Amino acid sequence: MSQSLQLLEAQFHRIAQLDHATTFLGWDQMVMMPTAGMQPRSEAIATLATMRHELLTSDAMEQWLVEALHDIDRGSIDESNRAHVSEMRRSWMQASAMSAELVHAQVLAGAKCEHAWRTQKLSNDWDGFLENFRPVVALAREEAQCRQAQRPENFNTPYDALLDLHCAGDSHQLISSIFSELKQELPTLLQRVLDKQLLRAPMDLSGDYSFDEQQQLSEQLMRVLGFDFEAGRLDQSLHPFSTGVRGDQRITTRYRTSDFADALQATAHETGHASYESGLPSRWQSYPVGRARNMCIHESQSLFFEKQVFLSRAFGESFVAAIHQYLPTTQAFSARDIWNAQTVVKPTFIRVEADEVTYPLHVMLRYDIESALINGDVEPDMIPQMWEASLQSYLGLSTEGDHAKGCMQDIHWTDGAFGYFPSYTMGAVNAAQITASLKEQNPQWRDDMARGDMGFARTWLHDNIWQHGSELASQELMSRATGQGSSARFLLDHLKARYIDELD
Amino acid sequence: MSQSLQLLEAQFHRIAQLDHATTFLGWDQMVMMPTAGMQPRSEAIATLATMRHELLTSDAMEQWLVEALHDIDRGSIDESNRAHVSEMRRSWMQASAMSAELVHAQVLAGAKCEHAWRTQKLSNDWDGFLENFRPVVALAREEAQCRQAQRPENFNTPYDALLDLHCAGDSHQLISSIFSELKQELPTLLQRVLDKQLLRAPMDLSGDYSFDEQQQLSEQLMRVLGFDFEAGRLDQSLHPFSTGVRGDQRITTRYRTSDFADALQATAHETGHASYESGLPSRWQSYPVGRARNMCIHESQSLFFEKQVFLSRAFGESFVAAIHQYLPTTQAFSARDIWNAQTVVKPTFIRVEADEVTYPLHVMLRYDIESALINGDVEPDMIPQMWEASLQSYLGLSTEGDHAKGCMQDIHWTDGAFGYFPSYTMGAVNAAQITASLKEQNPQWRDDMARGDMGFARTWLHDNIWQHGSELASQELMSRATGQGSSARFLLDHLKARYIDELD
Repeated sequence: MSQSLQLLEAQFHRIAQLDHATTFLGWDQMVMMPTAGMQPRSEAIATLATMRHELLTSDAMEQWLVEALHDIDRGSIDESNRAHVSEMRRSWMQASAMSAELVHAQVLAGAKCEHAWRTQKLSNDWDGFLENFRPVVALAREEAQCRQAQRPENFNTPYDALLDLHCAGDSHQLISSIFSELKQELPTLLQRVLDKQLLRAPMDLSGDYSFDEQQQLSEQLMRVLGFDFEAGRLDQSLHPFSTGVRGDQRITTRYRTSDFADALQATAHETGHASYESGLPSRWQSYPVGRARNMCIHESQSLFFEKQVFLSRAFGESFVAAIHQYLPTTQAFSARDIWNAQTVVKPTFIRVEADEVTYPLHVMLRYDIESALINGDVEPDMIPQMWEASLQSYLGLSTEGDHAKGCMQDIHWTDGAFGYFPSYTMGAVNAAQITASLKEQNPQWRDDMARGDMGFARTWLHDNIWQHGSELASQELMSRATGQGSSARFLLDHLKARYIDELD
Repeated sequence: MSQSLQLLEAQFHRIAQLDHATTFLGWDQMVMMPTAGMQPRSEAIATLATMRHELLTSDAMEQWLVEALHDIDRGSIDESNRAHVSEMRRSWMQASAMSAELVHAQVLAGAKCEHAWRTQKLSNDWDGFLENFRPVVALAREEAQCRQAQRPENFNTPYDALLDLHCAGDSHQLISSIFSELKQELPTLLQRVLDKQLLRAPMDLSGDYSFDEQQQLSEQLMRVLGFDFEAGRLDQSLHPFSTGVRGDQRITTRYRTSDFADALQATAHETGHASYESGLPSRWQSYPVGRARNMCIHESQSLFFEKQVFLSRAFGESFVAAIHQYLPTTQAFSARDIWNAQTVVKPTFIRVEADEVTYPLHVMLRYDIESALINGDVEPDMIPQMWEASLQSYLGLSTEGDHAKGCMQDIHWTDGAFGYFPSYTMGAVNAAQITASLKEQNPQWRDDMARGDMGFARTWLHDNIWQHGSELASQELMSRATGQGSSARFLLDHLKARYIDELD
């Protein structure tokens, strides 16, 4: 192996160990840490981020990268390492765009804002939140400008540069064109679904479901979906999430005593994220090329497990037995009752509780606001009124000043994750497209689901998506897996099949 | 502030953040981590240890230390920083004694041995354990020799150099002289206690106590003892331990359904450790001088809370109400019944379950073996037979090849913590001595305990022990707090008062 590649790998291995620490300190912070642990924890995470940044932008890095690429060109490093080296280069460029001071300030401001948000949200304290949020926005704008300045040929606006962090490879143009097709068709589709659902009277599934029993049921769902409890855990947190490393996937869900379906959907969703991570190529562990491709692919995996599998009629018919077993009082509900209740379409306030049909509208609302915010077209204090106007226009609803149901509902912006939201809808699009391919290639698809048999699906996903890590560009990955790049058509077809034709 | 001191503080602050990461990754490993997480976790912890070592032994460090000490001598750094600088120097010397490779190899070998021990212990697999344990011993010997070579004037044997890591300031001579006084008096005392206890028929406290109820009772005990749940947690693990940082103290205990007293004693013990840590001087946070003095003092705090407070007759009279409340089936037992059952003296196999009278004999047995092992006088495979011989001689017992009850019972040696055991008995000595001072200075002592009022004790400990961190040498700390250096007399007096004269 060439010396440049050896040095690069040693450096990136060390960076991966700092990431390991940050990953589990972050999990602990969300799931285990007592209140007073916040100050020392933020300081530790900020310092680790600074050290990571220093390692990634150390003087020798640029030269090693140049040499390694040169070594590939002249054949002294095998061509199969090209993606390996260019993904290291991409990490290096992303880090080099920002000063260590900016990184440090962002971690501190983000942690502070996010931590306070947890209580401010409950007390509808927008003013208190705004105080912590202004510096988060200011720092994100600074970041966006730095990133745009580094690659002006790639980014038309500062926001495009943040979008690239989460959706790398899926250009602003692609996303915009998919969103505009959805924007054109969804309102009519939504109205047709609402009309159709007037004929349905879904059962009320509410009851008194203990957290313990729901936790056991969620664990059973994870086992059916293929989660390995020797290599991961399920816990509770305010907002469900997935994190961890290969061998140790940590996912969370949240329980309500009155409802069991919400936690199960979140569990299925996070199991999808964890499955992708656990299937990433082990030979590239520790290196950027071994990471998940982008969040548009990541969300396609979670939404595949949640919407395409768990919410399918066939899987519901199989899994109802477990629901009846772990929550005996649900035995009054049939699989069809449960499916009906879980597929109610209705404009609502909360994104994470939204149905599949209205969900993209929640995303577009946020996309409009965050792009304007980062590009400096609006200021943070204008968010509530923009939110209100968009909510009226997209969904015909008003939050009436209840920010917990409005612009304070999501965790993303609190620590500066702007440019992330579009990946949810890109994920839904990709998930529907992947499912269409899976159904085409497996005539037994419905039978598999009706038996809760994930074998074919997991193998297909492993071979076509997971094992590739970041070796292929996202649209190349989609094309090889499904025969074409991401297209809104598959999501629209899926929604029509499930909600209009009931051919799910 | 002088530049040397500024540079030192920045470097040690960064080291403290790596320590923060290692602390909570270690906690997670013991309490939360799934099996397959071991390999990536070990790698991460080993890399953090290497990075810590590099920071601590970086080229500039020695010069900064020399300059800072010089600055104190000539008055440009205030004299009050002397302990601050010398404790940084002590950390630097301890780290410089070892190569980065040795540190890395130790962390890997220790983690592997400890992790496998958890299952090998259950299956009595000494041979399997030995395979992982040999490299741990070889590396510990290498470490001991390096440390001895660095300060030959301080250490007569390699083992003395490891002892110093845990008992710094309490010389081998001091410990040996205290141990030999105990060795002389304990056998006679033990026989007298055993004779006396022939007249007692302690009640059988066993029952069916749920983990949930025991957890709540343990939490109540912690609240009475002064633990702040905004700044810490209680969890379960195989072997109870205490870790964390100021603001986030994590302690663990373990429950058995048949017995409630064992978990409570462990909880009181770990609460003592956590109390010390939470009372360390905040102005020296991140720096060596702000750390606990040594393990002989640390164990004195845990044993103070466990043996001097929780196991006292008076505290037992107060706390019985909580036991009755959280575990209703215990209402058949009086405070006296519970105290009697918890103060049974009887030679047994397991150190952590041993009574106060026989405990020092367990420590001396381990002290004999580990010193011979590190000094190369015996090999690892001879441990079982040495154990058997000592157990016969000290306690008149035989493990008959059941290593889980013998030399595989403790976690300490598994990751190379040789030289730690003596601190338990030094801690018991110091705790008894501290209690004698507390009783002398507070005539209400017994009334306080009978009301579960820890106010005076916590304030006294804070003022005399906790807030000093490592500013004073251990024997200076004991002298200022109690009027004299550590002396076996107080432990022997305590044991006589509690077990012979019943004047507890």
